[in-house]
Amino acid sequence: MMRRIPTYFHLTIVTVGIVSMIALTMQDAPPLIRQTSERALFACLAIFIAEWLGKLVYAARSGTLLAYARSVGGLADALAVVPLAAALLLAGSSPTAWLIASLWILKLPPASSGLSLLNRVIALEARSLASVATLFFVILFFAAVMVHLAEREQQPAAFGSLPGALYWAVTTLTTTGYGDAVPQTGLGRLIAGLVMIGGLAVFGLWTGILATGFAAESRRREFIQNWQLVSNVPFFKSLAPSAIIELARLLRRWDMPEKTVVIREGRVGDCMYFIAAGAVEVQVKHGPVKLGPGAFFGEMALLGSGVRTATVITTEPSTLLILEVADFRAFTAANPDLAHLIESEAGKRGGKHAHAAEKAKGG
Amino acid sequence: MMRRIPTYFHLTIVTVGIVSMIALTMQDAPPLIRQTSERALFACLAIFIAEWLGKLVYAARSGTLLAYARSVGGLADALAVVPLAAALLLAGSSPTAWLIASLWILKLPPASSGLSLLNRVIALEARSLASVATLFFVILFFAAVMVHLAEREQQPAAFGSLPGALYWAVTTLTTTGYGDAVPQTGLGRLIAGLVMIGGLAVFGLWTGILATGFAAESRRREFIQNWQLVSNVPFFKSLAPSAIIELARLLRRWDMPEKTVVIREGRVGDCMYFIAAGAVEVQVKHGPVKLGPGAFFGEMALLGSGVRTATVITTEPSTLLILEVADFRAFTAANPDLAHLIESEAGKRGGKHAHAAEKAKGG
Amino acid sequence: MMRRIPTYFHLTIVTVGIVSMIALTMQDAPPLIRQTSERALFACLAIFIAEWLGKLVYAARSGTLLAYARSVGGLADALAVVPLAAALLLAGSSPTAWLIASLWILKLPPASSGLSLLNRVIALEARSLASVATLFFVILFFAAVMVHLAEREQQPAAFGSLPGALYWAVTTLTTTGYGDAVPQTGLGRLIAGLVMIGGLAVFGLWTGILATGFAAESRRREFIQNWQLVSNVPFFKSLAPSAIIELARLLRRWDMPEKTVVIREGRVGDCMYFIAAGAVEVQVKHGPVKLGPGAFFGEMALLGSGVRTATVITTEPSTLLILEVADFRAFTAANPDLAHLIESEAGKRGGKHAHAAEKAKGG
Amino acid sequence: MMRRIPTYFHLTIVTVGIVSMIALTMQDAPPLIRQTSERALFACLAIFIAEWLGKLVYAARSGTLLAYARSVGGLADALAVVPLAAALLLAGSSPTAWLIASLWILKLPPASSGLSLLNRVIALEARSLASVATLFFVILFFAAVMVHLAEREQQPAAFGSLPGALYWAVTTLTTTGYGDAVPQTGLGRLIAGLVMIGGLAVFGLWTGILATGFAAESRRREFIQNWQLVSNVPFFKSLAPSAIIELARLLRRWDMPEKTVVIREGRVGDCMYFIAAGAVEVQVKHGPVKLGPGAFFGEMALLGSGVRTATVITTEPSTLLILEVADFRAFTAANPDLAHLIESEAGKRGGKHAHAAEKAKGG
Repeated sequence: MMRRIPTYFHLTIVTVGIVSMIALTMQDAPPLIRQTSERALFACLAIFIAEWLGKLVYAARSGTLLAYARSVGGLADALAVVPLAAALLLAGSSPTAWLIASLWILKLPPASSGLSLLNRVIALEARSLASVATLFFVILFFAAVMVHLAEREQQPAAFGSLPGALYWAVTTLTTTGYGDAVPQTGLGRLIAGLVMIGGLAVFGLWTGILATGFAAESRRREFIQNWQLVSNVPFFKSLAPSAIIELARLLRRWDMPEKTVVIREGRVGDCMYFIAAGAVEVQVKHGPVKLGPGAFFGEMALLGSGVRTATVITTEPSTLLILEVADFRAFTAANPDLAHLIESEAGKRGGKHAHAAEKAKGG
Repeated sequence: MMRRIPTYFHLTIVTVGIVSMIALTMQDAPPLIRQTSERALFACLAIFIAEWLGKLVYAARSGTLLAYARSVGGLADALAVVPLAAALLLAGSSPTAWLIASLWILKLPPASSGLSLLNRVIALEARSLASVATLFFVILFFAAVMVHLAEREQQPAAFGSLPGALYWAVTTLTTTGYGDAVPQTGLGRLIAGLVMIGGLAVFGLWTGILATGFAAESRRREFIQNWQLVSNVPFFKSLAPSAIIELARLLRRWDMPEKTVVIREGRVGDCMYFIAAGAVEVQVKHGPVKLGPGAFFGEMALLGSGVRTATVITTEPSTLLILEVADFRAFTAANPDLAHLIESEAGKRGGKHAHAAEKAKGG
Repeated sequence: MMRRIPTYFHLTIVTVGIVSMIALTMQDAPPLIRQTSERALFACLAIFIAEWLGKLVYAARSGTLLAYARSVGGLADALAVVPLAAALLLAGSSPTAWLIASLWILKLPPASSGLSLLNRVIALEARSLASVATLFFVILFFAAVMVHLAEREQQPAAFGSLPGALYWAVTTLTTTGYGDAVPQTGLGRLIAGLVMIGGLAVFGLWTGILATGFAAESRRREFIQNWQLVSNVPFFKSLAPSAIIELARLLRRWDMPEKTVVIREGRVGDCMYFIAAGAVEVQVKHGPVKLGPGAFFGEMALLGSGVRTATVITTEPSTLLILEVADFRAFTAANPDLAHLIESEAGKRGGKHAHAAEKAKGG
Repeated sequence: MMRRIPTYFHLTIVTVGIVSMIALTMQDAPPLIRQTSERALFACLAIFIAEWLGKLVYAARSGTLLAYARSVGGLADALAVVPLAAALLLAGSSPTAWLIASLWILKLPPASSGLSLLNRVIALEARSLASVATLFFVILFFAAVMVHLAEREQQPAAFGSLPGALYWAVTTLTTTGYGDAVPQTGLGRLIAGLVMIGGLAVFGLWTGILATGFAAESRRREFIQNWQLVSNVPFFKSLAPSAIIELARLLRRWDMPEKTVVIREGRVGDCMYFIAAGAVEVQVKHGPVKLGPGAFFGEMALLGSGVRTATVITTEPSTLLILEVADFRAFTAANPDLAHLIESEAGKRGGKHAHAAEKAKGG
């Protein structure tokens, strides 16, 4: 329970706070809006202080105070409260002081998860990234020196000093191109053209390394999660370990909120679903049939025609594992066990419900 | 029949409509063009209303009215007609009212297919994309706050409020760089440089995730389609299921319009073709030879010299499966069955036609 | 002979021609330069006319006139000569007429090879590219309509008509951002921000599809070439077909000009080389040892310490196949045959030359 | 020793030198800063001269003078000293002469390693890159010619000559978009739009080729290093060669500085570590336990619950090989040997330390 609530809760409070903060900086806004904004900001701060103190007390009681304080979440909680409260106490409430509230954005859950993933990728690809970053700075620096030599007499304000030339080089090498500093001599323009083309090359390398690393790391994490989920589905227990490994690689995890339509009767489907956590309701004429963790549905898309025979809706937030028909074919060509398992289970089901609920399988 | 026609038909009507709509907004165009444009727009609208009503009646008769109304195509048909007709009735014909005709673009078939693919990719990569989007907004927001602090005194118009600073940050982080708001202080320029470099990194991650997800999903869909096509080619029936799976992965689907030259006599070829649907004509001296679904041609490129011995032309819109020499070598190294099959079939053919049509194989 | 010469020859003539053409458009250049440029252009044109006529005569004699005229090279040859000659005859020599000489660029060999590869990629990825292009145009069009509505009153010149708004949308969606048309209302800036972020997404998809397709197609072509080269090396004849296929995938082709140092004595090496075509010279004390097609060298890097024991230089333009130590380890773990072959060959060599040329292996 | 020191040493000296050089070009800086900068530059130059002479003497004594002079490092050392010293002697100390100090940046170690990797990638992908570069120049050139024709009358200064039009085309095709030269006619804007969209396509190809090549080459190099490291870990000696190859592909190398926390007690872990070089300290209650090269730790994350039972810190700069739980599962599903090895070793350890140091395994 302590984990579920904050996701939406934090998102709401942080959004309210940030929007109020933005409104506060607009000097031509009517006084009413500015007053409301300030009050909303005080309310958000109060909530975050209460949350932080609550967590500190809870952590102190359970003897994990140090662990909490050193965790990413604990740091985010502290940063959201301490600097802003200190600034308000010292300097009073002013739009500038409230700018510190931008630290609240660090409380958003994806921020920490995304940053931890990014952290890992950067640590593992550090050498390649360092090579490209060095290449970037070498090009940047030589470009700045050369354009400084070419343009300093014509445009002393923009290119007369190396810091100015470096600013131009960053603007150009990243292909941003503001146009506030632009070479005017022929030589300067030639250098600019080469820098732009060089920018594309560096950018290509940079993109490639980050993209490759990020993709590999996400797949790795997804595999670990899938493998844990698959291990907990009793239905798969009889498969060989190597088959479970392969299956964990094929399944795709889909987290669905409550009351979401997973499959709709009459549509054409190309995948089946295993319930890793949560529950769904198969809507058939004589009333809904409930399926819980470990059950599967939609298998007729793989065994039969592909047209869904019933609508399936989640009844609570659920984690489903999707097996697509393409992967199912490839997998069962090598491991026929799973196909037999699913067919026999589907057969059993079909027999059990044959008269009353021929369509209850949701396939 | 009901499916084929609309592809070119819609493309034509939508193009005419959109071009007319654009012409209508050009205030210095001669009156004749404006009148013609308006008439063309009314004609397009009439066609779409007729099409929509026709489809509604057809769906109501076949009892699929609800399914049609809820389908992507049904929504696009309704959106193309209802809002525009309502606006014309309420406000009369004016260039502004006709702007609603831009919804017609949703009727183009690739729009819906592309959007459904994109939808799936986004759903499956939601977590990674959310991480990167959060990272994007964190950088965006801190950049805006910092440049607001650095530049608000020098340039109150552009950077005096956070919305202005955020606009600058988006412009810079996406490397668009209009140049209408540009930092002028040393600190502001340093921040700008860091934001641009950060933009490259975020962009790299974004590109990588979308590209990887899109590539995987396209390959998945292609595999399902190929697998269905291969299963329908009688020639492959004798292959083991695992070989069919592997073959479906190697084959590349090529949809060709009517009367297209597939291979040309005398050219060097590096692939053979299986006909999944449609028909082709092998042009040999004593008259053309027809080949239908399940047949193959061009196999001499894999077995012999590689020079095409006849020209082959489609006689109707056809779906061909291409097997390249590289994949053929790799595949038959592991599964020699296919090579034997093709060789024996080619031998049979060679024998049958040996005297009259030595070149009829089109290989 | 007819193939080798044109590569450098065309590059030189085309470069001279293009540079002269550029010089001709510079109106403040001294008359001498303009005269020289014009003469150089006439000379280039004369050479291309002579080449074209020569090729036509040669093709007509060998009965391949039609094949030549319809080939990519034949079209490029004709386009380089006919339009320009016609323009010069009709309108006389002027900088504008000479602009047609820009068609000469199509004679460069990589242009045709690159364009044929690109052609193939575009044909195979046509569906995905069409989806993304449609998405691009949908975003482009809606962005233009919305910004037209938001800005047309404030900036009628830039955003008053849809063509203007579309120009702005292309500039923004491709993240070019000239800054000549910039939204000024709050709503317009919000739309601009969303368009820029959408531009990143579309760009990511576009990049991903083209990059994936291009990489797959290049690998495919490289494999076919390698497979043909490997099949012609007698040394590999004794390997199993599946091993040859795998080897063709591991080897990397390296085309080297004459008199190039392949490996240098004393450097650390991590790959060995097979000669597919051409010849090399191993420089040892008692005089150089020649190696021709089918021979290998540098094998000590894989079997021994990795320090090169002799310098090896190509004596004619050669095609080498590189086998890296990593791939060698992986390959011989599964197929120990190649390692035995190389070891026994290296042993033989070592014995033969043991006294006089211990270092002749170039390893 | 001669290798370790320069990494930080060079980074410091080069940074001091470059910053001083930048300061020297700022004409409005106070004289004190300019004097200090100049002195710092002289000091840096003196250090580099001393280093170069020292290396030359050392190389001459050990008979490797030629090898040193021709190596990348030797060239960088010479370039850092000779041109700058010559300029100072000939022209005296001036900000312009000191700009030559920008060559110092080539002394940074990643510069040479990154450039050598880039060199290799460019050599191997030369054909594809040449195709795309040609395509880039073809588009660039035709764009320049067309916009020159469309705009030369309206804007003779910017588009009147081809060099100007080419500068605009580079700016646009790389999506930099300064905005200093902008088409104003309808036709010119249409060309500009097409060039921008073409720029995206070329950029996509460019990015894809460089990224693919770079990723493949880095993986190759990493594999060779890993393979050498794994071969030196006695623990792996009993594995089959094919298993060692596969393991070398799974392990990820992590170079860690001295006194770094590798794993922290109480955190959840998903990987184990092998020590390839260096040493770590497992911190348990009764005093630290030292582990050296060939040892492993953190294995409980793979065998047990995943919660780390002790903190592990490096005691010297170490090279660790990381095996993630996902890879461990996949690897041991095919090769159960490693799992037995680790379990038996973990069992032995557990038995040995059972009473005094139950937590000493650091798992």
